[in-house]
Amino acid sequence: MVKRVVLAYSGGLDTSVILKWLQDQYQCEVVTFTADIGQGEELEPARRKAEQLGAREVFIDDLRQEFVRDYVFPMFRANTVYEGEYLLGTSIARPLIAKRMVEIAAEVGADAVAHGATGKGNDQVRFEIGAYALNPDIRVIAPWREWDLNSREKLLAYAEAHQIPIERHGNKSPYSMDANLLHISYEGGILEDPWAEPEESMWRWTTAPEKAPDQPRYIDIQFAHGDPVAIDGEALPPAALLAHLNTLGGEHGIGRLDIVENRYVGMKSRGCYETPGGSILLKAHRALESITLDREVAHLKDELMPRYASIVYNGYWWSPERRALQTLIDQTQRLVTGVVRLKLYKGNCTVVGRRSEESLFDPRIATFEDDAGAYRQQDAEGFIKLNALRLRIEKRLQG
Amino acid sequence: MVKRVVLAYSGGLDTSVILKWLQDQYQCEVVTFTADIGQGEELEPARRKAEQLGAREVFIDDLRQEFVRDYVFPMFRANTVYEGEYLLGTSIARPLIAKRMVEIAAEVGADAVAHGATGKGNDQVRFEIGAYALNPDIRVIAPWREWDLNSREKLLAYAEAHQIPIERHGNKSPYSMDANLLHISYEGGILEDPWAEPEESMWRWTTAPEKAPDQPRYIDIQFAHGDPVAIDGEALPPAALLAHLNTLGGEHGIGRLDIVENRYVGMKSRGCYETPGGSILLKAHRALESITLDREVAHLKDELMPRYASIVYNGYWWSPERRALQTLIDQTQRLVTGVVRLKLYKGNCTVVGRRSEESLFDPRIATFEDDAGAYRQQDAEGFIKLNALRLRIEKRLQG
Amino acid sequence: MVKRVVLAYSGGLDTSVILKWLQDQYQCEVVTFTADIGQGEELEPARRKAEQLGAREVFIDDLRQEFVRDYVFPMFRANTVYEGEYLLGTSIARPLIAKRMVEIAAEVGADAVAHGATGKGNDQVRFEIGAYALNPDIRVIAPWREWDLNSREKLLAYAEAHQIPIERHGNKSPYSMDANLLHISYEGGILEDPWAEPEESMWRWTTAPEKAPDQPRYIDIQFAHGDPVAIDGEALPPAALLAHLNTLGGEHGIGRLDIVENRYVGMKSRGCYETPGGSILLKAHRALESITLDREVAHLKDELMPRYASIVYNGYWWSPERRALQTLIDQTQRLVTGVVRLKLYKGNCTVVGRRSEESLFDPRIATFEDDAGAYRQQDAEGFIKLNALRLRIEKRLQG
Amino acid sequence: MVKRVVLAYSGGLDTSVILKWLQDQYQCEVVTFTADIGQGEELEPARRKAEQLGAREVFIDDLRQEFVRDYVFPMFRANTVYEGEYLLGTSIARPLIAKRMVEIAAEVGADAVAHGATGKGNDQVRFEIGAYALNPDIRVIAPWREWDLNSREKLLAYAEAHQIPIERHGNKSPYSMDANLLHISYEGGILEDPWAEPEESMWRWTTAPEKAPDQPRYIDIQFAHGDPVAIDGEALPPAALLAHLNTLGGEHGIGRLDIVENRYVGMKSRGCYETPGGSILLKAHRALESITLDREVAHLKDELMPRYASIVYNGYWWSPERRALQTLIDQTQRLVTGVVRLKLYKGNCTVVGRRSEESLFDPRIATFEDDAGAYRQQDAEGFIKLNALRLRIEKRLQG
Repeated sequence: MVKRVVLAYSGGLDTSVILKWLQDQYQCEVVTFTADIGQGEELEPARRKAEQLGAREVFIDDLRQEFVRDYVFPMFRANTVYEGEYLLGTSIARPLIAKRMVEIAAEVGADAVAHGATGKGNDQVRFEIGAYALNPDIRVIAPWREWDLNSREKLLAYAEAHQIPIERHGNKSPYSMDANLLHISYEGGILEDPWAEPEESMWRWTTAPEKAPDQPRYIDIQFAHGDPVAIDGEALPPAALLAHLNTLGGEHGIGRLDIVENRYVGMKSRGCYETPGGSILLKAHRALESITLDREVAHLKDELMPRYASIVYNGYWWSPERRALQTLIDQTQRLVTGVVRLKLYKGNCTVVGRRSEESLFDPRIATFEDDAGAYRQQDAEGFIKLNALRLRIEKRLQG
Repeated sequence: MVKRVVLAYSGGLDTSVILKWLQDQYQCEVVTFTADIGQGEELEPARRKAEQLGAREVFIDDLRQEFVRDYVFPMFRANTVYEGEYLLGTSIARPLIAKRMVEIAAEVGADAVAHGATGKGNDQVRFEIGAYALNPDIRVIAPWREWDLNSREKLLAYAEAHQIPIERHGNKSPYSMDANLLHISYEGGILEDPWAEPEESMWRWTTAPEKAPDQPRYIDIQFAHGDPVAIDGEALPPAALLAHLNTLGGEHGIGRLDIVENRYVGMKSRGCYETPGGSILLKAHRALESITLDREVAHLKDELMPRYASIVYNGYWWSPERRALQTLIDQTQRLVTGVVRLKLYKGNCTVVGRRSEESLFDPRIATFEDDAGAYRQQDAEGFIKLNALRLRIEKRLQG
Repeated sequence: MVKRVVLAYSGGLDTSVILKWLQDQYQCEVVTFTADIGQGEELEPARRKAEQLGAREVFIDDLRQEFVRDYVFPMFRANTVYEGEYLLGTSIARPLIAKRMVEIAAEVGADAVAHGATGKGNDQVRFEIGAYALNPDIRVIAPWREWDLNSREKLLAYAEAHQIPIERHGNKSPYSMDANLLHISYEGGILEDPWAEPEESMWRWTTAPEKAPDQPRYIDIQFAHGDPVAIDGEALPPAALLAHLNTLGGEHGIGRLDIVENRYVGMKSRGCYETPGGSILLKAHRALESITLDREVAHLKDELMPRYASIVYNGYWWSPERRALQTLIDQTQRLVTGVVRLKLYKGNCTVVGRRSEESLFDPRIATFEDDAGAYRQQDAEGFIKLNALRLRIEKRLQG
Repeated sequence: MVKRVVLAYSGGLDTSVILKWLQDQYQCEVVTFTADIGQGEELEPARRKAEQLGAREVFIDDLRQEFVRDYVFPMFRANTVYEGEYLLGTSIARPLIAKRMVEIAAEVGADAVAHGATGKGNDQVRFEIGAYALNPDIRVIAPWREWDLNSREKLLAYAEAHQIPIERHGNKSPYSMDANLLHISYEGGILEDPWAEPEESMWRWTTAPEKAPDQPRYIDIQFAHGDPVAIDGEALPPAALLAHLNTLGGEHGIGRLDIVENRYVGMKSRGCYETPGGSILLKAHRALESITLDREVAHLKDELMPRYASIVYNGYWWSPERRALQTLIDQTQRLVTGVVRLKLYKGNCTVVGRRSEESLFDPRIATFEDDAGAYRQQDAEGFIKLNALRLRIEKRLQG
């Protein structure tokens, strides 16, 4: 019953097989959509391949600016990390892909969308919840949950049988990888043993701390209203800014992560990540908030953050609860404007200075020196006495 | 009306002046109490000095084991950090001091306790709320909030006038410092400018990453029920274990922190901290939890942590709300047993492996390879469909 | 492949059809299990009917005491209400049924369990998540999601074709109902229009406030450690106590509820409930906590309650996160011991007195009269000043 | 050093004494400010009395509309209740008074503000934190914390000595009361015994349920964007609407409350409240949200509500954390538009219907009848299976 389907197409083997399989299986037309979100691959080969394999129409969009500006930065305003560690590099790209798939489906009159994510992972959830939220009547086809090509051998056999070109490079990675402007991720292979340390050769974006320069690099990041806008005084648009930080961070071995995380579908999985620019931004943003945000607002954000992170991780970017939280988060960022200085050195990203016109750090009050009466120490007595009152009553009455 | 007071006595200038001042001002007897919580100073000089200055009785207690076992470790079970960064090294020592002060007051029949914390900081709150919670009828004397010796000059003049020995070392630190087995802290001096980077010479416990060994060090930390019990297979009691990690971490430049934090009394202040062993433990504990804790339990802990951290930071260790949260936290740690391997290198502390008899990481299910039916990919469709249902209805009905 | 299945059997038409259908469809033996959880029906007819319809074995268990003691009361310790209104009468019975089904399956060597809940509601989730949590290898059969008997007509036709007795009473309720010692619920019929008021005849347990006695009734409920133990001085075991309160509350028109709630499966549904005893207990328990619980502990409980309620509502009773929260909740109840006096009158349940040996209400301090120095009003100045400090600094620096 | 002070003046004995005492004690000019927030007293006598007692200037402001529109309604958008019961009638009026005091101080060039709240209660905190937040340099004078007129006798003596008129009515209430458009409160007297039931004569606004009409009254409340705008089809401005609901609710005995609450200053206190209109609004608003709000948004609001309530109760209306939460709350109210029908009868306020153009209640999906495929019951299997997955793995691996 499907007439036309929009396929999120990477140009790789899996989605190429899907492109063919959809035409076969559903007797439908396939429109491919390939997004440049900074994964660092040339996309023109994908166009040719899609055309070759019978795509009715081919969309290739440069979404890098939008990705960083409207997805990565809003998420970073919340200092978002999932389970204390993960910067959500994969999660944050999915809602944008879902949105464009649904938009293209409307443009080309498609009645379905399809993707190449497996039935075990989080990405299927993120794609599909996003798609359903934006178009409740869209149909989603997830071939990995439907077909019987459930091994590499069968996939290759299908590809050969259907003249799908297979790139056989010598150095095929043993890992399942995903990359965009925010990060690159690795799963599978020896990582399936949580006791196994990944070999150095796995990491692609960052120099090993051991090989990083012996000289530290100092950088100043300027923020306006919660978002980074300039590095070392040079204003940069979002995508270029993040790319520049990726370069700097990568050089200095910053942003490697090796964790076991809890997937939304109910299992634990091991993942390794490189997020050089994001790791720097997270440190810097929190440091700027430390002088510009009120204590209770900062604490409120800290308590809400894990929930916001789960919402993004689980694929609910296009949900009303994410929007409600975002409204709160954005409101707190009005005065998060200023500069943070960081030192990058062999894997370390250290905050060494922060300043802001909006700073709430009042040295006249905080000083260890004579404060000329700015703070009356005697006030502390009543403060403590009343804060302790309930505890004193309890000790007396409940012992 | 005070007859006898127990003074938390460090042996330094400030508390020596207080020892004298209390006798003068209140015409009372002073019993001193000096705790060894791993601050790394000899305490016998404090005894002699206290006796010399007229202390009626002198208590010197080695509280190191108790400190780490009953305060540091329970707090670490919650992965506690204040405002995303601070490991609460100073905060966690205060409730123990308060408890011993109150106990000694009961032993010696004192009607008051006194301390040398200023009226601007958090420590006065922590000491006093602790004391009031444990003995609601105790009187607290906080000389810094009462006297007029509010400058270094006046303090020195008072000391000279009362024959209080003043140690004049050449290398007197320009910083206000506090140390115990968990950390050493620095405040004041140039740190009062949040844009100023502290000079390298400030740091006392850790080698600069730049000077740390070129060879990484791998260590295995064994945990039982949430607490670390052995390093590289060698069982160690709590204090020795933490001390050993301080040595290892310090050598490799691990655990430096430079932040602006929000004090309970309402101001922002800059602090620098070295917490080498604690920083390692935090990483290791979280990594072990990542394979042994249920997802929802881990998330619950993450959402409660900021509140727990504020409770400790603000001095409410001896409160019923801390106890209630601790009960939950401790209950979750029953199966947090296993080993974490870490790599220490020039300021970096990286998890490279984790294993446990209680591991919930099930490679048969998580695998990218054929899972022999352990997981049915088709289940994901219904999972996604029902999770998306409310969003689809909303899009249809509210647009 | 199913050899023997344990069916949660009510004796009604639906589960009788299922009893037959399972034998037909799966060619398996069926063991029936009927629980008395206070639904107020005779169970012996269910036994005869099950035997008649070919049940291999029939279990009928009186679980009333266990239900109230181990499920209802622990939940009430948290003052649990879902979405601000619903006392979870249906939700809280399901984990007990699931537990017994799994136990019986083990006893009789069954490889599956089956239930009569539909694929639209919450109960399927509660049964099945409970069953899976307690026996991860159990198979669950949910006929309503499998068969094609998806209308009342088809069901009746199947019943006739298979000699299943159909009770044709004149006054068949137009509502879907569920009852146990905690409540009776109504769904469907005219309730599917949220603007329609249910007719008076729908309500079965409670007198209409308009018809309730003109004389108020006062009762005293005694609690020990968070649980009710006596009414008007008479000690009662859990089930009898709740039954007695149902009678009293029902007489006085207490505990009717008419709401639209959010189901876990993603839709909104209208439900009406009568929970006379539970409504009284909730009021009483909170009132006792108001004098025996510390403020911060009470607030912590209030903030965690919605999450606990969702856990129970969604069917996660047998989850580690429910257990962790329960540990905290139970710890807070140690001193929730005392008596609450309530006035029942035409739908109103009003607290008019509360007393406890463990009361933290200290009239010497709270009094408007002279407190003889128990509270020093001057302390409030410092308390306010320091609590306002951050706001003053912000106004000065951020305007 | 105080030249001119703005006094929150009620016209009663206490603030009249303060008006005189301030002139005596501080040798300063006093400007009085009396707000009409619906307390139901004539204010012109206050003007004459103030002039008589030497007020330099007299401000009398009708703040009723502003009070309900900008304080009560925003708070009700959050379904705010403190400690599960209290509708915050006193708390919500204080920030408005504080704001006007600070504004008038600026207008008349006053350097201080003064109020008649005691040093034991919450109101001093609310007034002063509000004042400091809006003008960090204002000075606050709280005579009750300063003077020695700490008994009724001394106060009367002072009044006589200074020709302050004392109204001696026969029926002086034994309670300390506070009233505004939202509520009237009672404290003190026999209420200081939490076991004592208040006598019927205490209640001033509501008919006793026993004396309320035998006929129920049905009303329809129309909301727009979260705020009530019309009753029974008649549009009313905020103050008139709340006043009308007070009348209706009062007639039908609705909104009495008798609780023990936890004050911010650390003690428990007994309070009785009548909040007829507010109690109706709370029920109605929640009912409308039940059909117009997304589940996760509603749950988020429920979890944040206790914190919001504490913020208001503790006097932090003018804080950045209240503003941040308000932003979130207001954002959720965009589509909370519709009508709720309620039945008022002898103390009961029951929701009997709710409808909205923005309703998310989809009867086609929720129906017990044939849904024509709107919901696919089979989806529930996968939903349950994956939600149960972590529990199954845990049972297998951790037992």
